[in-house]
Amino acid sequence: MSAIDFKVIAQDAASAARHGSLTTPHGTIETPIFMPVGTQATVKAMTPDELREIGAQIILANTYHLYIRPGHELVARMGGLHEFMNWSGPILTDSGGFQVFSLGELRKISEEGVKFKSHLDGSAHFITPESAIAIQEALGSDIIMCFDECPPYPAEHEYLRRSLELTSRWARRCKEAKKRDDQALFGIVQGGMHRDLREQSAQELVEIGFDGYALGGLSVGEEKELMYEVMEYAIPLLPLAKPRYVMGIGAPEDLIEGIWRGVDMFDCVMPTRNARNGMLFTSFGRVNIKGAQYAEDRLPIDPECSCYVCKNYSRAYLRHLYRSGEILASRLNTYHNLHYYLALMAGARVAIKDGRFSQFRQEFYAKRQ
Amino acid sequence: MSAIDFKVIAQDAASAARHGSLTTPHGTIETPIFMPVGTQATVKAMTPDELREIGAQIILANTYHLYIRPGHELVARMGGLHEFMNWSGPILTDSGGFQVFSLGELRKISEEGVKFKSHLDGSAHFITPESAIAIQEALGSDIIMCFDECPPYPAEHEYLRRSLELTSRWARRCKEAKKRDDQALFGIVQGGMHRDLREQSAQELVEIGFDGYALGGLSVGEEKELMYEVMEYAIPLLPLAKPRYVMGIGAPEDLIEGIWRGVDMFDCVMPTRNARNGMLFTSFGRVNIKGAQYAEDRLPIDPECSCYVCKNYSRAYLRHLYRSGEILASRLNTYHNLHYYLALMAGARVAIKDGRFSQFRQEFYAKRQ
Repeated sequence: MSAIDFKVIAQDAASAARHGSLTTPHGTIETPIFMPVGTQATVKAMTPDELREIGAQIILANTYHLYIRPGHELVARMGGLHEFMNWSGPILTDSGGFQVFSLGELRKISEEGVKFKSHLDGSAHFITPESAIAIQEALGSDIIMCFDECPPYPAEHEYLRRSLELTSRWARRCKEAKKRDDQALFGIVQGGMHRDLREQSAQELVEIGFDGYALGGLSVGEEKELMYEVMEYAIPLLPLAKPRYVMGIGAPEDLIEGIWRGVDMFDCVMPTRNARNGMLFTSFGRVNIKGAQYAEDRLPIDPECSCYVCKNYSRAYLRHLYRSGEILASRLNTYHNLHYYLALMAGARVAIKDGRFSQFRQEFYAKRQ
Repeated sequence: MSAIDFKVIAQDAASAARHGSLTTPHGTIETPIFMPVGTQATVKAMTPDELREIGAQIILANTYHLYIRPGHELVARMGGLHEFMNWSGPILTDSGGFQVFSLGELRKISEEGVKFKSHLDGSAHFITPESAIAIQEALGSDIIMCFDECPPYPAEHEYLRRSLELTSRWARRCKEAKKRDDQALFGIVQGGMHRDLREQSAQELVEIGFDGYALGGLSVGEEKELMYEVMEYAIPLLPLAKPRYVMGIGAPEDLIEGIWRGVDMFDCVMPTRNARNGMLFTSFGRVNIKGAQYAEDRLPIDPECSCYVCKNYSRAYLRHLYRSGEILASRLNTYHNLHYYLALMAGARVAIKDGRFSQFRQEFYAKRQ
């Protein structure tokens, strides 16, 4: 008996795009969905109330960061992540794999797990598939992820094969270690940019059996066309009846292309990180608010946008805030960018339901300059 | 005909404390009032909507900063400061005097005005009483301030005398330069910590005649007792029928002592700046949220506080946000601190109306640990 229930509500005729509903212990999500990233138990610059206001249905938190600070046991004693951060909706935690492997020289992989040093104080740690599950059980998220090895890009076929096989063995240990029945566990398909390896990985994971499946190891430096190609052949390897998630993706066009190929869930720091760097997403493309051409521009960021920021502030003011290093710049830019992403997903859902996702995708590209 | 209308509604029996209403072109303010500081056309980390939510009635913006960036003429072309920053309530601008004099080596004073170099790019500027008024007229604030010299502390009696006389001559030029009749002009009483000089300054300014009066040159490094002493003898030198403002003050106890001595208006960066440094104001004194004792504290910052932050977040979470360098830490801490200041003022107003301000002041001190 799974902690989640996934139903496909509508299937696009022209593509693999689908609209579904995913019920979790903390509420039901409509898919396809984008999950704002709340690395340190906060979506940077946003309150949970604002997240709800812009239509966020589920957020992602990073296991590695919360394990390091403030510590998963502290979070558990504070009532779990939902209560700690005052977010009552669904939460997905990653397994820490990607972050640990990003530490480079600071980590060492063995069959048992990964030894690494904290990016904060250099202290030594050891994470195994079992402890990655225990940490996520302490955090209490609705969807937890298997601990996987995230290979570098590019990497040799042989390395990638051994790596995905380790990830499969770890996935089995994760499933066996899992104790809480109010959390769903997703497996992560690896295999780099090799079709045969993605097939092997997907087959091994589906055999073990998970509540949902993710593609890992994408958006690691490869060309967009290659990323789309991998999604194109790898997504159909995952069970139709389970939610399908591509990790760490992406730009708005990547989401559209992912949905087209049958992806249900996405997460990425792009809307939040770019916001803090003054890069804004609009229906007509990207806007760099630093630009001198906005100095006296009384228009909102995106005249077609209905968000709080676009209803109340001019490009001229947002440029001034950004140049002045004001916190309000990060706030308003983040609010707008996340609203853009979530509204894009909402539009895609309606389009799939109405059987006009091809047209939606076409219009999305046509509007951009 | 003044752009503002001030009425004393209630006078405390035991002290000089009074409750009044001040009508400006952008709405009516209840006094005594604290004005959150929005240096660069934003109260740091807050939206205008949040300011209204916590009961802010009027905010202060800094003329010097806005003159330097984005420039007062740009603000005027964008519809004035209210529209530019999306704040429809009253605004007071300082004259830039204090900021310019804070530049130290970078400025040179003459009878005509002050030459200085921008703190941003070192470019040369010259501000006169006339241009200080023109800048504030371009910004379009409801209450504008005379350009004054802010002498250092400590300073010689003779220096302070010549300085206040220059400030008086500048004040006359400010009044003569003023063109807009939808802005009120306040004079600034200087004279350091010398009673005779404060008397001379007040007399000269009252003779010229302004819509309101401020005490400048306080909270510049002197002991609190000395500051209270100056307020004690200087406030009665100002006309009872006009609003009385002490600039750059202060800690919560300074506000209580100012109100006791008859002050109507205050501004200070303390609640906002301290918030960003993790220092929180509560009914029982100050809390340094960094402290290890709060690591697992599930209580709100102040169990007696009714603000959004205290209703939704624990000390443990606020400590985690602060230690993690998260923007949400600055946001929530600022929200709480400003709410504390504004609620303290609201409490003082009610206490004055109800004839129990002495008791209110006593309880304020008794609660602090």
